[in-house]
Amino acid sequence: MDAIIITIGDEILVGQTVDTNSAHIAKKLNLLGISIKEIVSISDTAPHIKKALDQAIDNCDFLILTGGLGPTNDDITKTVLTDYFEDELVMYPEILVRIKTYFERFNKPFLEVNALQAMLPKRAKIIENDLGTASGMWFKEKGCQILSLPGVPYEMKGLLEKFTAAISTEFEVGNFYHRTVQVIGIGESYFAQKLEDWEAKNRNEDISVSYLPSVGTLKLRLTGRLDQKEVIDERILYLINNYSKYVIGGEFETIEKVIGNLLVQGKKTLGTIESCTGGSIAKKIVSISGSSEFYLGSIVSYTNKLKEELVGVKKETLIANGAVSGPVVAEMAENGREKLGIDYCISVSGIAGPTGGTSEKPVGTVWIGIATPEKTHSKQFNFGLNRERNIQASVLAALNFLRLILTDQYQPE
Amino acid sequence: MDAIIITIGDEILVGQTVDTNSAHIAKKLNLLGISIKEIVSISDTAPHIKKALDQAIDNCDFLILTGGLGPTNDDITKTVLTDYFEDELVMYPEILVRIKTYFERFNKPFLEVNALQAMLPKRAKIIENDLGTASGMWFKEKGCQILSLPGVPYEMKGLLEKFTAAISTEFEVGNFYHRTVQVIGIGESYFAQKLEDWEAKNRNEDISVSYLPSVGTLKLRLTGRLDQKEVIDERILYLINNYSKYVIGGEFETIEKVIGNLLVQGKKTLGTIESCTGGSIAKKIVSISGSSEFYLGSIVSYTNKLKEELVGVKKETLIANGAVSGPVVAEMAENGREKLGIDYCISVSGIAGPTGGTSEKPVGTVWIGIATPEKTHSKQFNFGLNRERNIQASVLAALNFLRLILTDQYQPE
Repeated sequence: MDAIIITIGDEILVGQTVDTNSAHIAKKLNLLGISIKEIVSISDTAPHIKKALDQAIDNCDFLILTGGLGPTNDDITKTVLTDYFEDELVMYPEILVRIKTYFERFNKPFLEVNALQAMLPKRAKIIENDLGTASGMWFKEKGCQILSLPGVPYEMKGLLEKFTAAISTEFEVGNFYHRTVQVIGIGESYFAQKLEDWEAKNRNEDISVSYLPSVGTLKLRLTGRLDQKEVIDERILYLINNYSKYVIGGEFETIEKVIGNLLVQGKKTLGTIESCTGGSIAKKIVSISGSSEFYLGSIVSYTNKLKEELVGVKKETLIANGAVSGPVVAEMAENGREKLGIDYCISVSGIAGPTGGTSEKPVGTVWIGIATPEKTHSKQFNFGLNRERNIQASVLAALNFLRLILTDQYQPE
Repeated sequence: MDAIIITIGDEILVGQTVDTNSAHIAKKLNLLGISIKEIVSISDTAPHIKKALDQAIDNCDFLILTGGLGPTNDDITKTVLTDYFEDELVMYPEILVRIKTYFERFNKPFLEVNALQAMLPKRAKIIENDLGTASGMWFKEKGCQILSLPGVPYEMKGLLEKFTAAISTEFEVGNFYHRTVQVIGIGESYFAQKLEDWEAKNRNEDISVSYLPSVGTLKLRLTGRLDQKEVIDERILYLINNYSKYVIGGEFETIEKVIGNLLVQGKKTLGTIESCTGGSIAKKIVSISGSSEFYLGSIVSYTNKLKEELVGVKKETLIANGAVSGPVVAEMAENGREKLGIDYCISVSGIAGPTGGTSEKPVGTVWIGIATPEKTHSKQFNFGLNRERNIQASVLAALNFLRLILTDQYQPE
């Protein structure tokens, strides 16, 4: 079974909005064994929408549309679909009540335009939206299931969840299988070189190998037929067992979750003292729900003055070595353990750019420290010239540094 | 003139990668007056790529392809294009030198697979990549300019920059005009209600009005013909002048830049004391290059213990009101001004969820404080049930709260 995703809205075509919905939808449908043939973004005009419907409906089992269901005049998807499927808009009283309740909950006045959100196509199956006012609409035509969802991501997600629950019991699922591992701390070509034989073995058996690099991390995916599940599982297990220094887990694993689990298991606590990353490591840790079990707090000492006064780094250390140095991150991490009352402290000081670099310490030079109950480690990294990328790479390198220490895999060079 | 964007790679179709490239490309081409007709994501197989080329080349002036140019075996775009355009791969010695230098710079060993990156189609125009090993390839066919770029975003961006510089002098630009304002602190339907007459006036003149909501913010865009530039500029100016409480600026404005500019102009400094946002406000501020001019540092006091010990919130205040309360964020902000030695301090304490809510203070309850040299303000906000969204909405609300105070537009309710 396969699907096409169509996102409707000029905001995507003019580049104002990044389409995050399609990736989410693709992932969820893939879990059901439904493969995505194509993702198309079109403008929100009736002729474009109708043409895209014409082209897609005959070519897939599921057609997922997002966007254009808001309360303002530029939102036309609902009327275009109603017209296309020769349906008519009628008032759904129970939806109206739900929308009114929604506004009451947030103490917001109910506008007339919001009531129109309860006017929906008569013959479509309506999926109620618990997080907003635009309902999902499910049409069926020529054996194709057509689902129209709002473009606001969290509303879309809730509605898609209900749809996938419904179709997973109603329809037969697909016949391919894929698994992914998350890799950190090694570049694409270096890891590929290590895996030459492993890769050839997969290719010979028609199992495809894909490398998906992004800043500081890499995903490696195997795809084969469903009847190859066992051999794919075994190949993945091989990577996990033999490359645990780099492979942190499966598709949905993240370095922050790995660290969280290690700390919670060991009943240990964590905090950070950050300079150039400016709170980004803290933010990443706090993004995990349940982080309060192991994460206590942080200090962002962006200036040398705060490094001294708040963190207690010695003036002499700063003068002798500069803020971006091994001795400074070591003191930051050690003092951080004490000030924050934590077991493990990560510290970072670097030159994120675009300015501040010197010939000795160019933009992208970053020192990371880790203080543990036993020892303090520090290490220099060299990233690139781009500020955003340097911050992102520093965050991942710092968390991975801690992971290697927590799992006894860190070897000082 | 118009363009089609094709992204190549299963990683997008299986939902592992969010396609951020297309939005960036669309934005850049739009600035040149080139409108995007369609964005299509396809899988990385030769038949799919060739079919997509067949369909697109006759239908647009510019065709931008991204993805599939890496050094590993799953990257096939280069060979497929060379085949499609009946070209041949030859070694470009100057590119080889460049790639070798790239590896030397980062002290990384040079692998044979990396040398293959210098084998490129003979008749294509090669665009050199300053940030990686995959070159851009520019083909011309039937009046269509076809550009193939790597999928890694920062590499793609650098190459696109060179391409747009070249085409902006070579080709005539388009004939439409659009402008956008960024809106914060008011919901889509409420703002639309205020703008009913303004919107009707635009519609009557064939200027389209689009609302693009996302968590905590809204973009409002006007699109018309190039000869309507003056009237569109005037309509935008009207919004800026009459709704400055909500409208923070144009297309590329961000709340953190607005605040940065206000503080730098007034020679004032800023810091944050964060609880539930866990460093996210600090991270957003530090993302601006030049933030060290006004931003000094932060404390993330995730636990009550650190709120007391490190920030100096009184135990009595915590016991009497709970950590998520007006008096606590007021003390956090006031003490933060002192501890961090700053003029303005933002403080946040809330229940991000999914756990920790009570009937009195449900998940999504967030208190934000702002201490200024004159006064301390505090305000309660109620967001929703989703952790990620609550953190994001809190960050924007906190920064907007400060903006209203800095611009004398804050009115306590």
